[in-house]
Amino acid sequence: MSMELLRQKIEDCNNPTIVGLDPDYQKLPEFLKKQAIEKYGETLEAAAFAVQIFNHTLIDALCDIVPAVKPQYAFYEQLGWYGMRILADTISYAHEKGMFVLADGKRGDVGATMQAYAHAHLGDVQVGTKKIVPFGADALTVNAYLGSDSLLPVLEVCKQKSKCVFVLAKTSNPSSGEIQDLTVENEPLYMKLGHLSERWSKMAEDGFASSNSHGDRYGMVGVVAGATYPVQLSKLRKELPRTFFLVPGYGMQGGVARDVAPAFDKNGDGAIVASSRSILYAWKKEECGEQDFAGAARRAALRMQNDLNTVRGKR
Amino acid sequence: MSMELLRQKIEDCNNPTIVGLDPDYQKLPEFLKKQAIEKYGETLEAAAFAVQIFNHTLIDALCDIVPAVKPQYAFYEQLGWYGMRILADTISYAHEKGMFVLADGKRGDVGATMQAYAHAHLGDVQVGTKKIVPFGADALTVNAYLGSDSLLPVLEVCKQKSKCVFVLAKTSNPSSGEIQDLTVENEPLYMKLGHLSERWSKMAEDGFASSNSHGDRYGMVGVVAGATYPVQLSKLRKELPRTFFLVPGYGMQGGVARDVAPAFDKNGDGAIVASSRSILYAWKKEECGEQDFAGAARRAALRMQNDLNTVRGKR
Repeated sequence: MSMELLRQKIEDCNNPTIVGLDPDYQKLPEFLKKQAIEKYGETLEAAAFAVQIFNHTLIDALCDIVPAVKPQYAFYEQLGWYGMRILADTISYAHEKGMFVLADGKRGDVGATMQAYAHAHLGDVQVGTKKIVPFGADALTVNAYLGSDSLLPVLEVCKQKSKCVFVLAKTSNPSSGEIQDLTVENEPLYMKLGHLSERWSKMAEDGFASSNSHGDRYGMVGVVAGATYPVQLSKLRKELPRTFFLVPGYGMQGGVARDVAPAFDKNGDGAIVASSRSILYAWKKEECGEQDFAGAARRAALRMQNDLNTVRGKR
Repeated sequence: MSMELLRQKIEDCNNPTIVGLDPDYQKLPEFLKKQAIEKYGETLEAAAFAVQIFNHTLIDALCDIVPAVKPQYAFYEQLGWYGMRILADTISYAHEKGMFVLADGKRGDVGATMQAYAHAHLGDVQVGTKKIVPFGADALTVNAYLGSDSLLPVLEVCKQKSKCVFVLAKTSNPSSGEIQDLTVENEPLYMKLGHLSERWSKMAEDGFASSNSHGDRYGMVGVVAGATYPVQLSKLRKELPRTFFLVPGYGMQGGVARDVAPAFDKNGDGAIVASSRSILYAWKKEECGEQDFAGAARRAALRMQNDLNTVRGKR
């Protein structure tokens, strides 16, 4: 199971960090953009090339200390199909370097369509006699507003291919409470999604054809719960003992180590904390010069590892 | 404004139909798949090529009678970046033929990310001195589970570029009620999303820099409300007089003309009804032979036009 793979990689690196690869072309180091435009002109191909070099350099600098990356789809789609080609390349390069890849697409649609999304991002597609892997991530973030029948086709692919998903429960953005904190059936909606996620894990494990005796500690459905809402995070942790947490909002969005502490269980496990901008663009804050963007990213990642390990008692 | 453009195109064709371009490679006519594999081998490139021919042929067959198409992103992502290249090509070809293009991506994320999605699908991206359009659809479906700050960056792009969005309220799938029908603050969640959509339209129109005196009948935020739930559809119509409706679930998913009737206002306007499989794969039902897939699609679209115009009193 893929959630076990993630847990193992976190243990191997002793680091519960996932680096968000959200490369906003406008914010990349100038020398990379210049180099790309010299090669490909002022085109999306140039922009995608700059992102490719940026991502590879970051992955090289981080792969021995960070267990996982989380490419944010929007920043690749922004560069058209050239961007999507680099997304596939980034996933494949991260895998080569031994990293776990969580596709942050927040997909959610009706059953037949979700099946196509599952094949796209976690599975494979049959063309003639061949099965081809379009993107091949290890996990996908999903939006469950459409309910169970939107989740189950993805979970079937997860089970077949040893993948997993993270369902949005309580997101890290300022207005997440507007809908997610509304009370439904005596609990906030984010908690309802949390409970449904545990139920979906169980349904998938019990219900599908292959063996369910894999003895995993965590179900194949994780939840997303933001570092910016430590109270809600803590409530979710208490209610969902078998659920793995993806915790965004650390760093640039305002979350600090003590805010994410409640996401970990009593052994300091069960969660991975995402940071994007404060690692990708660390050179801007450090003022070390853009040529050293990867060095600055590594230093920021080491500081984050240290901070997280302190609060989860694993220094 | 783009919602006005959609209204105008519906009027010009006298047809409130949007054809879902959800080309599942497995279901395409065999001769197209064979032709593509002969040319490109058993590759995603071949699969994408077959989809390209399928889409172009359908657009040619439908563009004088159907005002709009709705490419479902999952079926393009399923073919990797080759699929995304054909998605961009399909949008551009539909535009050449005068059709309105609604990108059915159901995107939803935090503000900075949603801005990237908006640039990707509705706007443009700056590379050096040039502004480049990655996909360039006229409208995008969005999932508003993250609340206002996820919507407003998209609406700013909509306002600048004369585009619009459709927020998921009540979706057409069997388990949509599981979350969407839950009662929050004395109304079902789908209705809450409907009311928020009207508010977001108003905020966007009043709040952003450019003129708001365009005198549109409909706000730039539409809602998605499924044909498979006529009671909820009718309630939404009553509560949201300024909102344009996208109505999926017609045809293969079970909705018939009388089910969608409540989506139209008293003038028979204010809604567009989506159908995908019952048009794309009409040749299977007609048993006319797969070579005539486009003819069968046109005949199915004409029947649907007739049925819809009967119930909305515009024959």
